[in-house]
Amino acid sequence: MTRQLHLNAFLMSTGHHEASWRLPESNPYANTQVEHYLNLARIAERGTFDSIFFADGPVLWGGIERRPSGSLEPTVLLTAIAAATSRIGLIATASTTYNDPFNLARRFASVDHVSGGRAGWNVVTTAGPEAAKNFGLDDQPAHADRYARAAEFLEVAQKLWDSWDDDATVADKESGVWGDNAKVRPIDHVGRYFQVRGPLNLPRSPQAHPLIVQAGSSEDGKGLAARYAEAVFTAQQTLADAQEFYADLKRRTAALGRDPDQILILPGIVPVIGSTEAEALALAQELDDLIRPEYAREQLAKVLKVDPSALPLDQPLPADLPDEDEIEGAKSRYTLIVNLARRENLTVRQLIGRLGGGRGHRTFSGTPEQVADAIQDWFDNGAADGFNIMPAVLPSGLEAFVEHVVPILRSRGLFRTEYTGTTLREHYGLPRPVSRYAAHPELAHA
Amino acid sequence: MTRQLHLNAFLMSTGHHEASWRLPESNPYANTQVEHYLNLARIAERGTFDSIFFADGPVLWGGIERRPSGSLEPTVLLTAIAAATSRIGLIATASTTYNDPFNLARRFASVDHVSGGRAGWNVVTTAGPEAAKNFGLDDQPAHADRYARAAEFLEVAQKLWDSWDDDATVADKESGVWGDNAKVRPIDHVGRYFQVRGPLNLPRSPQAHPLIVQAGSSEDGKGLAARYAEAVFTAQQTLADAQEFYADLKRRTAALGRDPDQILILPGIVPVIGSTEAEALALAQELDDLIRPEYAREQLAKVLKVDPSALPLDQPLPADLPDEDEIEGAKSRYTLIVNLARRENLTVRQLIGRLGGGRGHRTFSGTPEQVADAIQDWFDNGAADGFNIMPAVLPSGLEAFVEHVVPILRSRGLFRTEYTGTTLREHYGLPRPVSRYAAHPELAHA
Repeated sequence: MTRQLHLNAFLMSTGHHEASWRLPESNPYANTQVEHYLNLARIAERGTFDSIFFADGPVLWGGIERRPSGSLEPTVLLTAIAAATSRIGLIATASTTYNDPFNLARRFASVDHVSGGRAGWNVVTTAGPEAAKNFGLDDQPAHADRYARAAEFLEVAQKLWDSWDDDATVADKESGVWGDNAKVRPIDHVGRYFQVRGPLNLPRSPQAHPLIVQAGSSEDGKGLAARYAEAVFTAQQTLADAQEFYADLKRRTAALGRDPDQILILPGIVPVIGSTEAEALALAQELDDLIRPEYAREQLAKVLKVDPSALPLDQPLPADLPDEDEIEGAKSRYTLIVNLARRENLTVRQLIGRLGGGRGHRTFSGTPEQVADAIQDWFDNGAADGFNIMPAVLPSGLEAFVEHVVPILRSRGLFRTEYTGTTLREHYGLPRPVSRYAAHPELAHA
Repeated sequence: MTRQLHLNAFLMSTGHHEASWRLPESNPYANTQVEHYLNLARIAERGTFDSIFFADGPVLWGGIERRPSGSLEPTVLLTAIAAATSRIGLIATASTTYNDPFNLARRFASVDHVSGGRAGWNVVTTAGPEAAKNFGLDDQPAHADRYARAAEFLEVAQKLWDSWDDDATVADKESGVWGDNAKVRPIDHVGRYFQVRGPLNLPRSPQAHPLIVQAGSSEDGKGLAARYAEAVFTAQQTLADAQEFYADLKRRTAALGRDPDQILILPGIVPVIGSTEAEALALAQELDDLIRPEYAREQLAKVLKVDPSALPLDQPLPADLPDEDEIEGAKSRYTLIVNLARRENLTVRQLIGRLGGGRGHRTFSGTPEQVADAIQDWFDNGAADGFNIMPAVLPSGLEAFVEHVVPILRSRGLFRTEYTGTTLREHYGLPRPVSRYAAHPELAHA
């Protein structure tokens, strides 16, 4: 069998283009309507996507003028979707900075049980002082601190997921013994950020551990991914950058003694699909024309740590921006935006158009054949194990991809024609983890 | 219309009787199988119950030998159930001691959105050092501290649920304005336990606030209920005790300026139903005979803060037990158990039988007519606004109640024959809260 693409559908209200909600076809209240997401999940499942995914942060970003704002908590939303689908993987974002490992490990294990083994967790550290202020802090913890906490958080979660042996329960009605206490162990974790006794109050789930996804591309983010991630969502604008990122992360993963085939790298792509290239470009232009640049400029100013007045719309970015080192927030996103503007010599207005389509992800307008070519080009050239598909408009952009691009990828032998497994790990070709305690009983303090 | 009963189905794995899993009919792995709970929810909805409810704590209580152990996180489980039902209310337990208000308020609001206004939250403070150890603490915070935190937690949650006006969104595609920033406000809460800026990252939900339920019957618990609760689940063994609790809590509620009709008091009852009284008693006896007393004694010893060896099975409780004042855990449960044993002069073995049926709740074995009489007796005599129905065996005990008791209550005009509302608040006859900020804009700091 030839090497196969992995496709994740990154879903967001009416689409990734910030003006998508203004199209006549769009339901501007879709962001809080579960029916909208059930429909999207069914479309993606019809297209045999590996998974769907929701970004998230525990904060209202900026005002609510610009685009549909506020969102359903992703583990809740994915559970509702689990009931309406049977195969597709379900990946929710959750913050290690603003959660407790016991509660979150249990919640993901619960979603894994309820979905029959389809849960994934996109581990984020949540940049920005705004979120911090919802949790009793004046400002975010430092970048390195957030990542150190994330690593320990994952360690605790994995211990909890291993705290019941797979064969801990016997359910012997005759003798009245339901389970074997010796096969359920406290984890007795004591670390810098957490002290957690355990065990988890839930038997081991179908996947044992939900699939671990990571999306930060800073140095700290790549370090965390190399150690823990099984899939990586990343924003890459050029083939060369994507190749460099791909090789670097595979190398880091191998250096830690992990099999580099067991970390799948999925760059984001915002496809705008038309039956002709001109039609696709016209739709992309229609969307860009619907952006209100004054809103977008405000957000850009926040990311760049400058005043909006320092960003006249028809001039390039100012020369004296801070270094990435001074950014405590989303470092790699900052660098990507500045590099994009400088490389292509964009005015602020042009930059806003490019970012409005997918906030720094690669946008690509074209025919289904051209989109399939763009995907295959990176896949064949050491830049991707698959893609994070980010339709500019939903549901129509996802429908177009499933109806017109997926068949081309299938006909080229690059993508499955039906699901062969039932769990998310099986879709991604990743093993079910063996419990560290069952494998090494001496690790347990019990 | 005559005054109507409110019925909640309190669901727990194979039933509230600890030995229910040993019956031939029971699925001993039901505790983690979503299909089991979907079936139960559909039965309860067929019986036009107001709601279903799950107890919960972020800890594995004791060992796993005695009965099915571990459970799905309730907001996840109820979301899965929301997708399979259309009217019944969905009440999840969550701890104010071991959660953050921002995340939890959002999660309940999300369940309310996804279910079309059917979410309820049973607010608990989580007794016991075991849970504390899963959250970095050596022991539980003191009882009074846990309740003070709970009150502030609820205050923060309600502010967050009010942080978007109902008419905050306009979705004007023409002008490109989605929402009105002036109608979404930071809450700027600064208190003893929490500092939360807000606003919530989710528009106001169908019920605005999920229904608030409270179940602790200590002094602190009754104080919290009088201020915040809209329904109260309580364990009462005798009519006199239930009347006293009912009158006391209505009085406390009125004293705080609230309408005492807007706090509904629902004592628990564990009905064991047979087509004859003898058949019901035989089923109850069969269940009690399946209890392994050595497991139950260990748990009883924990609640009573004594060594298991101090509790010989065929002798009464020792005379020198601690006072309720010395208990930092579940105070009212402690007192109920001690009083039950002393009042009825029970041996430890007999007490274990009584508790095994429903951990201190009132058990009642009889025909459907007798069960309906027992319910009506308390309802007509100032002891209850409805009941928390806790079937000893599931699903059969719930089926028996819906098939045989509900029709009698309906024929007496005491219970609805069909749903007249769509939200949980409508079932309980409670209003949708007005936003404090929309009502009093001067409260907002924005």
